[in-house]
Amino acid sequence: MHDPEWRRYGALIIGGKLLGVAVLLSLMFILPALYNAGTSVLGGHAAYAQESMPAMPGMAAATAPAAVAATQPVMPSDLTDTGKNPLINPLNTVWTLVAAFLVFGMQAGFTMLEAGFCRSRETVNVLVECVFDTCLCGILYWAWGYAFMFGAGNGFIGWHDPAGSASWFFLGGGAAAALYNTSGIPVLAHWIFQFAFADCASTICSGSMIGRTGFWGDILYSVGVSGFIYPIVGHWAWGPDGFLALMGSDGHFLASLGMNFHDFAGSTVVHTIGGTIALAGALVLGPRIGRKFKRDGGGPMTPHDLTIAVIGGFILWFGWYGFHPGSSLSAMDFVGIGRISANTTLAACAGGLVAEFMVYFRTKKWDPGAITNGFLAGLVAITCPCYWVSPAGAVALGAVSGVVVILGTDLLEFLRIDDPIGAVPVHMMNGIWGTLSLGLFASGEYAAAGSSNVGVPVIGKDVPALTGLFYGGGMQVLNAQIIGNLTITIATFMAAFTVFKVLDLAGILRISRQGEIEGMDLHEHGISAYPEYQILSSALPGGLPPDGGYIPVEDKSKSKVHV
Amino acid sequence: MHDPEWRRYGALIIGGKLLGVAVLLSLMFILPALYNAGTSVLGGHAAYAQESMPAMPGMAAATAPAAVAATQPVMPSDLTDTGKNPLINPLNTVWTLVAAFLVFGMQAGFTMLEAGFCRSRETVNVLVECVFDTCLCGILYWAWGYAFMFGAGNGFIGWHDPAGSASWFFLGGGAAAALYNTSGIPVLAHWIFQFAFADCASTICSGSMIGRTGFWGDILYSVGVSGFIYPIVGHWAWGPDGFLALMGSDGHFLASLGMNFHDFAGSTVVHTIGGTIALAGALVLGPRIGRKFKRDGGGPMTPHDLTIAVIGGFILWFGWYGFHPGSSLSAMDFVGIGRISANTTLAACAGGLVAEFMVYFRTKKWDPGAITNGFLAGLVAITCPCYWVSPAGAVALGAVSGVVVILGTDLLEFLRIDDPIGAVPVHMMNGIWGTLSLGLFASGEYAAAGSSNVGVPVIGKDVPALTGLFYGGGMQVLNAQIIGNLTITIATFMAAFTVFKVLDLAGILRISRQGEIEGMDLHEHGISAYPEYQILSSALPGGLPPDGGYIPVEDKSKSKVHV
Amino acid sequence: MHDPEWRRYGALIIGGKLLGVAVLLSLMFILPALYNAGTSVLGGHAAYAQESMPAMPGMAAATAPAAVAATQPVMPSDLTDTGKNPLINPLNTVWTLVAAFLVFGMQAGFTMLEAGFCRSRETVNVLVECVFDTCLCGILYWAWGYAFMFGAGNGFIGWHDPAGSASWFFLGGGAAAALYNTSGIPVLAHWIFQFAFADCASTICSGSMIGRTGFWGDILYSVGVSGFIYPIVGHWAWGPDGFLALMGSDGHFLASLGMNFHDFAGSTVVHTIGGTIALAGALVLGPRIGRKFKRDGGGPMTPHDLTIAVIGGFILWFGWYGFHPGSSLSAMDFVGIGRISANTTLAACAGGLVAEFMVYFRTKKWDPGAITNGFLAGLVAITCPCYWVSPAGAVALGAVSGVVVILGTDLLEFLRIDDPIGAVPVHMMNGIWGTLSLGLFASGEYAAAGSSNVGVPVIGKDVPALTGLFYGGGMQVLNAQIIGNLTITIATFMAAFTVFKVLDLAGILRISRQGEIEGMDLHEHGISAYPEYQILSSALPGGLPPDGGYIPVEDKSKSKVHV
Repeated sequence: MHDPEWRRYGALIIGGKLLGVAVLLSLMFILPALYNAGTSVLGGHAAYAQESMPAMPGMAAATAPAAVAATQPVMPSDLTDTGKNPLINPLNTVWTLVAAFLVFGMQAGFTMLEAGFCRSRETVNVLVECVFDTCLCGILYWAWGYAFMFGAGNGFIGWHDPAGSASWFFLGGGAAAALYNTSGIPVLAHWIFQFAFADCASTICSGSMIGRTGFWGDILYSVGVSGFIYPIVGHWAWGPDGFLALMGSDGHFLASLGMNFHDFAGSTVVHTIGGTIALAGALVLGPRIGRKFKRDGGGPMTPHDLTIAVIGGFILWFGWYGFHPGSSLSAMDFVGIGRISANTTLAACAGGLVAEFMVYFRTKKWDPGAITNGFLAGLVAITCPCYWVSPAGAVALGAVSGVVVILGTDLLEFLRIDDPIGAVPVHMMNGIWGTLSLGLFASGEYAAAGSSNVGVPVIGKDVPALTGLFYGGGMQVLNAQIIGNLTITIATFMAAFTVFKVLDLAGILRISRQGEIEGMDLHEHGISAYPEYQILSSALPGGLPPDGGYIPVEDKSKSKVHV
Repeated sequence: MHDPEWRRYGALIIGGKLLGVAVLLSLMFILPALYNAGTSVLGGHAAYAQESMPAMPGMAAATAPAAVAATQPVMPSDLTDTGKNPLINPLNTVWTLVAAFLVFGMQAGFTMLEAGFCRSRETVNVLVECVFDTCLCGILYWAWGYAFMFGAGNGFIGWHDPAGSASWFFLGGGAAAALYNTSGIPVLAHWIFQFAFADCASTICSGSMIGRTGFWGDILYSVGVSGFIYPIVGHWAWGPDGFLALMGSDGHFLASLGMNFHDFAGSTVVHTIGGTIALAGALVLGPRIGRKFKRDGGGPMTPHDLTIAVIGGFILWFGWYGFHPGSSLSAMDFVGIGRISANTTLAACAGGLVAEFMVYFRTKKWDPGAITNGFLAGLVAITCPCYWVSPAGAVALGAVSGVVVILGTDLLEFLRIDDPIGAVPVHMMNGIWGTLSLGLFASGEYAAAGSSNVGVPVIGKDVPALTGLFYGGGMQVLNAQIIGNLTITIATFMAAFTVFKVLDLAGILRISRQGEIEGMDLHEHGISAYPEYQILSSALPGGLPPDGGYIPVEDKSKSKVHV
Repeated sequence: MHDPEWRRYGALIIGGKLLGVAVLLSLMFILPALYNAGTSVLGGHAAYAQESMPAMPGMAAATAPAAVAATQPVMPSDLTDTGKNPLINPLNTVWTLVAAFLVFGMQAGFTMLEAGFCRSRETVNVLVECVFDTCLCGILYWAWGYAFMFGAGNGFIGWHDPAGSASWFFLGGGAAAALYNTSGIPVLAHWIFQFAFADCASTICSGSMIGRTGFWGDILYSVGVSGFIYPIVGHWAWGPDGFLALMGSDGHFLASLGMNFHDFAGSTVVHTIGGTIALAGALVLGPRIGRKFKRDGGGPMTPHDLTIAVIGGFILWFGWYGFHPGSSLSAMDFVGIGRISANTTLAACAGGLVAEFMVYFRTKKWDPGAITNGFLAGLVAITCPCYWVSPAGAVALGAVSGVVVILGTDLLEFLRIDDPIGAVPVHMMNGIWGTLSLGLFASGEYAAAGSSNVGVPVIGKDVPALTGLFYGGGMQVLNAQIIGNLTITIATFMAAFTVFKVLDLAGILRISRQGEIEGMDLHEHGISAYPEYQILSSALPGGLPPDGGYIPVEDKSKSKVHV
């Protein structure tokens, strides 16, 4: 912001920002309209929200009426009727809140992963960016993001309490005391759980843009991502009347399909969206100065702290146990949350092993990055199907994710796209794979209804079980998954690319060449992450003198270290 | 301890310690007596402990009797009567224990924050000190700290089970099987939750004393803080018969005020106490050698590892989700714990953004320290009012906390007080601000009774809601908050200053000049934190040779593995 | 694996592996047979699994029948009868899952502890090994490990559902929907909790083998440990029909003893097994090149990052709160889980303080390693007795653990055994001490039945309380503990030593001398953990040029961005 461009592009920035938002909003409204052929009603609440919840696995199977024999045994009414058992809502809220805290804890993991895998010269930027985006996302999600995403409205965007007409902007008045949809969870507990999800999506996109994004650029695109793209597109799949959530039911989008889009914990909503924005960002930005790709005789830039990076991966895995089981928003289906937890573990293990062996057989080295991105890929892939697959299915689809992440990394390298931490192969590509994998691996044992995060417990629905191609269910589920994911991927990419392009044209997306050579941390933040350590000359940013250079404040004028 | 002073001051140390404890205890008993004018009875149990718990938000509003229409709807008896629903206590205990574990986890965050923001030469000292204080605090809190704080006794100090006369020292016999007060939580579950709080207060004070406190000095003042100051002063606000907890009720301190002191999760009890002790410690110690202040042409010493520091901040934020919602000691008010969680998030986000922009507009740099201390300031501020304010109120008071922390840092710099991590502006100043903010922002929607940690769930009390100045409630709440916080701040400062001064006069508070120049880590701990890294010459402690090089005493050649 | 040995030993490796497994399995079956003198039936389910659960502390004491007056008061049927209160299983599952997540989180702590305490040249190896072992353990524990350990079968090994004959290999079909034993916890929730335990044991053994274990060696021994030794030996103590679990009851092993082996959360099962394998590994491997021992004029090699190490210790402590209280598999005994949590804390605090003072009085330095291993020792020791001792007992046995860990470290140093992080003194020696300490400190207040992790809540058993020697209970409990621990320690050591020796003879356990001098990270993983930092020449691995410098293979000039 010190460069002359700042003055020159001053007006353009404001104009560009407004234009970006306008284009974005237009796209958001136009795109889904293209799908509306088969949809007579986009408004209205999900029909299933009024259904009763009679079924549950692992309990009282003998009392299941014959009519639902193909689905799941009946859940005792003491687990569904809060009048009979008023502890249901407190217990479910405890479960959701603990899960929310774990998902929030993933921010520590993301920050460690990104900081460790980047170069030391851009580490402070990663740190400040992760914290800033979290703070920004919280305020935006309170102001309007949550209303856009989980409020009722139409199939495209929401704004009010599904149980009435009260606005959910700023969550004032009654909103703060209401329960979310039919979940029995307080709106504010659901809010913090979903805020933590939104924050993950926001952090994911930053991963591919490390090392060359100007901080004002980061702020402005983050407003676009956290304030508009994520909540609006997310509404389509998880909103109470989102057109993908209602897809296939009578009177809604693609009624002839007879199947709605399922995304239990967000392979599409969180990971594909986040990873697709990451791809758009990396494309518009271009690679960091000095980054040469494999076919040009180079390779990825080396990370600066693998200890921090790998431990960050473990902390992410830890937090993921809030992400998946917590997406049930309920502990009543206690067999289900156990299954989700085990499936999550197994997919991660399989992804890590497969990715590691793939790289080992190529290079004869046991690569720390491959196994870390491998288990993360498994975690991303199982995010969508975690409730509906068997443990063996989780192992199988997790193993595939390990292949996807390595081949995806190769592809980006071939395409000369600089993605410093692998956000695109981990989150976008495995988000897509995981979403589609439900269409293959859904085991035919667990109820089809609901998409979890929408606030309708998947269990206890008097509906047939979800069955994938490999379990004799044909193409129906797979088709719904393809349509849902493709819609969201394309829409997200177009919206994000537009936002980035506008910011780029305004000259504020990428840091100046001079600033990048000086070093992002010194240029944007006035300090290096490790002012006392001697950095090897080959890694030394231009802004530091060759003898390293922590100059104590007392002697020299303090942040002008690089002068 | 190797210096001749050790021999010389030998006897003085013991004498000084005894004197310090004596002065401390005297002060503790004398000071509150000054307030006792309006108080006829300091003993006796809190009157509200015998009240029934009929009301609850968000449930069965229709059944609320007209009499409590202005407060909160009735809570179904199945959520209050453990005879009717014996799962209430198990669920509340699970909630409290999980929260306790999260609060304990904050120790990792505090240690990272302090270690990252200090210089590498004093890092081992930070590490050992944080662990040692945790261990010491655990033993003291078991021996007598918990009894002093949460035992019944008089308005000033406690020692026995509120439900009988059994002593709580060492938590032997029946104490270990009893339930705490009216909470339904086992005493030992309440103990670990409160131990984690005590440990936070203990760690907070160490932050301002980094880099020049001798380890024996640290041990002795920690005995004073964890064993006496924190639990005794804490009793005033959170003890079952603490005089601030009972303030304003008939026959108690300042009955005419008609309002007791409220501190839901400890803006005053944990943060103001911890931060005030930090201030006293920094004042008595004086700055580190070489620390020059801004008006003398210097500025803060640079941190040595911002990655560790910022991630420590995130882990603190994560653990804070145990601190606030867990302070309910109950999940029955499930709408309340959702609100607390959301308010906590929003205040942190607002504090971080405001502090960051304040510094940016001054320096044109996006400062990692400012945003970290900013969100911590927001977390500290919302600690007291988290239950009683609306989300919008949380944003507003969090935003103010971002201003407070930056101006507070300026003030310390101006006053030439060396606080290496900002413990005073974050914890003391925002602890005060957060406590007072309840008097401004209490929204008039939530019950006034209880102070949470006392073991009386705030919800379900048949009492009027708490209403602050900005919501038409006048000065009553604000006055109670001012009196409560001021009492505690002054008493804590006087006690802590006395302890530190006595230790300082005895010559054991501060490390010797020679030891400080050699480097605390080498002098007190015999090892540097990173024996293999080359440290820039300007940051190299005197105890290391100019070519870097940690050379173990035993055998200088031993690690030359590759020769 | 690039060395000529690889080709030469090719066939030997496969043969050796098969041989190792064969020897292992044989030993496993032969050894326990030696004890079977007093045992007529090794099969069959535990008798207590069919008992009712009538008793509970801290509730409704008045209704306890006179017959169990010496044990524990009656638990209300609403806490035992899931038909009357269907929320019991959901709440217990939430408790178990949250605990499982915390235990999984210990992986981050273990990785940090090991990485921080090792040299930088072997850090990447630690990182990859910790992740790889976790992934491998997950797959093995799903494939057969869990079936071996928690399936019913005979006293030595399990394979099927205790409630039927369905196989538990690969947890397919009905297994995934069943509840574990009599616990009411879904099998898959129990699986993830126990997977996290198995993973801890696996990680513990790696600690003593840092810096010289080849990666293929690591993979192969890990298959032996995670796939065979841990689950099979673990079955003896925790399996539904394990011979040590049933020891002392009519018709079982040592019926005349009248007392079974107790290990609430795994001082023996997790820590002694893990630590004993660590000892065997360190013995077979021998010390790292350049490691000189104290009596040869040397001492332990210096760690490279104490910040990471100590914070890892704190994260372990945090995760331990899942390890112990979660081992109840139930929140119904809410007083019990509170007591476990407090006892865990107190033993850790006492162990840390005692170890620190012991080292201080020797060296006059406040050692960061001593206090960290001290509190870890306390945590290991209290793992077995955490449910059955009083807080004072926890302090006492924790204090002893601090002595054990320091003397144990001395002993290893004297025996010239290179254990880089102290896995043997912390886990093996304190695992043994903790197991035996139950025989001394069991307070006579809490029910004897069950060993927690077996899935039978210890509470509510209509059996006498467990009473140790110091509480007037005589030698009975102590004898059972000695027999149980000794059996497991000897069997584990023999099996592990055999596995390691076979791998060593096959030439694949230890990295080549050349590779060790080049540096493990460069040799096995192709990258150093901190490619940008200047490492002191005394710590520089041979594979790096004297001027430091990670030079990527592809393009030596590529990171010279600033040129």
